[in-house]
Amino acid sequence: MITPDEALRIILENVKALPEEEAPLSKANDRVLAQDLVARENLPSFDNSAMDGFAVRSEDLTGAGKASPVGLPVQDIFIAGTTKESGLRSRHAIKIMTGAPVPVGADAIAIKETTRADSDAFVEINHQPDPGDHIRRAGEDVRSGDLLLKKGVTLRPYEIALLAAQGLVTLPVIRQPRIKIFATGDELVDPSQDISFGKIRNSNGPSIVAGLNRWGVEPTDSILVRDNADELEGALRIGLMKNDVLIISGGVSIGDYDHTKAVLEKIGFQILFWKVAIKPGKPLLFAKFMQAGQPKYAFGLPGNPVSALVCLEEFVRVALETLKGHKPHYPSYHLKGHVLNSYVKPVNRQQYIFCQVQRENDEFLLSIIRPQGSAMMGMASRANSLAVAPIGVSHIQTGDVLSFRWLK
Amino acid sequence: MITPDEALRIILENVKALPEEEAPLSKANDRVLAQDLVARENLPSFDNSAMDGFAVRSEDLTGAGKASPVGLPVQDIFIAGTTKESGLRSRHAIKIMTGAPVPVGADAIAIKETTRADSDAFVEINHQPDPGDHIRRAGEDVRSGDLLLKKGVTLRPYEIALLAAQGLVTLPVIRQPRIKIFATGDELVDPSQDISFGKIRNSNGPSIVAGLNRWGVEPTDSILVRDNADELEGALRIGLMKNDVLIISGGVSIGDYDHTKAVLEKIGFQILFWKVAIKPGKPLLFAKFMQAGQPKYAFGLPGNPVSALVCLEEFVRVALETLKGHKPHYPSYHLKGHVLNSYVKPVNRQQYIFCQVQRENDEFLLSIIRPQGSAMMGMASRANSLAVAPIGVSHIQTGDVLSFRWLK
Repeated sequence: MITPDEALRIILENVKALPEEEAPLSKANDRVLAQDLVARENLPSFDNSAMDGFAVRSEDLTGAGKASPVGLPVQDIFIAGTTKESGLRSRHAIKIMTGAPVPVGADAIAIKETTRADSDAFVEINHQPDPGDHIRRAGEDVRSGDLLLKKGVTLRPYEIALLAAQGLVTLPVIRQPRIKIFATGDELVDPSQDISFGKIRNSNGPSIVAGLNRWGVEPTDSILVRDNADELEGALRIGLMKNDVLIISGGVSIGDYDHTKAVLEKIGFQILFWKVAIKPGKPLLFAKFMQAGQPKYAFGLPGNPVSALVCLEEFVRVALETLKGHKPHYPSYHLKGHVLNSYVKPVNRQQYIFCQVQRENDEFLLSIIRPQGSAMMGMASRANSLAVAPIGVSHIQTGDVLSFRWLK
Repeated sequence: MITPDEALRIILENVKALPEEEAPLSKANDRVLAQDLVARENLPSFDNSAMDGFAVRSEDLTGAGKASPVGLPVQDIFIAGTTKESGLRSRHAIKIMTGAPVPVGADAIAIKETTRADSDAFVEINHQPDPGDHIRRAGEDVRSGDLLLKKGVTLRPYEIALLAAQGLVTLPVIRQPRIKIFATGDELVDPSQDISFGKIRNSNGPSIVAGLNRWGVEPTDSILVRDNADELEGALRIGLMKNDVLIISGGVSIGDYDHTKAVLEKIGFQILFWKVAIKPGKPLLFAKFMQAGQPKYAFGLPGNPVSALVCLEEFVRVALETLKGHKPHYPSYHLKGHVLNSYVKPVNRQQYIFCQVQRENDEFLLSIIRPQGSAMMGMASRANSLAVAPIGVSHIQTGDVLSFRWLK
């Protein structure tokens, strides 16, 4: 039995980002750039007006003020998208819209709010702009040839905008992990079916899929597998053909019908850890297998539905973030609260405790939900947070401080 | 011009959760339950073993200990999923796996770790369990007829597990918002195209889609519309047929070619606000239209790409969360940091300032990126955070404290 920190360390040591692939911009959202990108063009690509107003020579407006407006004939109108390249004549103005190119000869924009135009032919301007006013210069944001985005950045909406503006519509990004979920157990039936005595519905398949989808892993499916070593082996071998990660719930403990570990070993997986000093989730297993130079990973999760989800979020998630090229989101328990009720836990395991946290003034107060158990989904559904009680502690008393995170 | 708080208030006053619909469990992840649900069955539905071991009558093991193990003939094996209903004979044990039904007559499980069985026929047990030990009682988690989940809860993986376990495979949930995005402007060309002088690529369409997808709004498409009132009207009328929210970028300012406001009014929208005291994003517009008893909403976003995304996250997001039935995620600026460089802002507007924040010891230090502009996507891509500087402040000095949030 290893500590949870040791388990996380082993995961991080063994999991690497997936290889890159070309993806269209429309599929690049939230993914990690696999190469440095260089700007192909200046942004903006031409000098343009930052405001609606009139393009002018600032010297033509010397002395202009509210009491002494200067009148100029309006030579032309430049709207955004115009391809006109005509120049501004001396002592004239060109009406201009935001985003339109600045006419040759103009050195400032007199913004609409400082002008009065009773006709399309003539404008009075009551303010002298400084040279450069309200002009966005070509390349002021990005210069052609400069580093546009660094390898390793996550593509947020701002980066998507930047890439679209540069015309970069296919991109080198880290491939998304492909994941297959196996819910094992002779007792399991599909959630759509009635249950007879002794049977339960498969809740791990749907809930693990939901968890993965929330973390931006493409929709994944789950299948049911009987407690039979041959059937499990066949299912895992098929799963390995197309997937990077196999997640197997159930069959990972020490019972006579627990085949997960033996079958993974038979296939060629190296067991990197089995059994972690946590509650719930002790039988958690992590394994790796090199297939044609490409690592494949397997997680054996406990069959109990609450244990499975705790292990998924605490351990599997770290592996998935790493595969996607992110710096892993280590489970974060940076909030602290005072416990309102006592609880007894195993001294030699770190326990994840389901709580209802409320905020009172500037303090968080944690009600530990009692009883709690690794199969109690109703219990977990009443929790808004998960507190963590370390190895070495056996009794939690009213008033003790525990670290917690929100269960979102 | 209204304050940003006033704008958020108007959005919250006018936007209501969408109507409910039936959705399959596989599409229910992260959605909001539209009705109270009552438990149809006990969970667990039968008494079952929480551990691998032997089902026993505790009285048969009186005095059992390490030095005085009690031997019992093994009558049968119950594996998880068994449908056997046979009873435990007096002074016998039944081998049992986690999740298997507890045989009638047994009142405790002697866990495997306290037993020794050299054959399938006989077991020695070195510990006397208390009645009830390691038995999960039918209904201990959820009782048939009890409230299972409350209307308004967000369905997390734990709730998905619970619903699957109850066999609830279609659910009443709040409908997802349908959104159409219109990027307007004669200057715009598709990101896949080369640009000629005066033209720019459409970055708002892809970046707004990316933003919405990150917040769990189903993939949405964007279309390009020219700066032409008739064309815009036609596009918006078609968009209204199928969508709840129209998001229009560009054409929302006071220029002669800004048609958004007039076209929305012509269609029948009531303008709820136009122009907010923010930078970037001042021309932001919000409108509502009742169509066959169902409210439709429109947001006019500035055409500048950085302004559009700031308005999307600060204002549109609040509306979308509300439509989805969530308590809205008000933009949260609860972190605070010290500014490392000075900055001048308009005193009468709240400014969202792009920063690079680093943590030093227990303090956040904010480098304001300079220059910053509403069209500078390269600038925004270098920021990891957005600070907010309130109305009334014109000069930010080194050492000042600003609130900020991470730009994820």
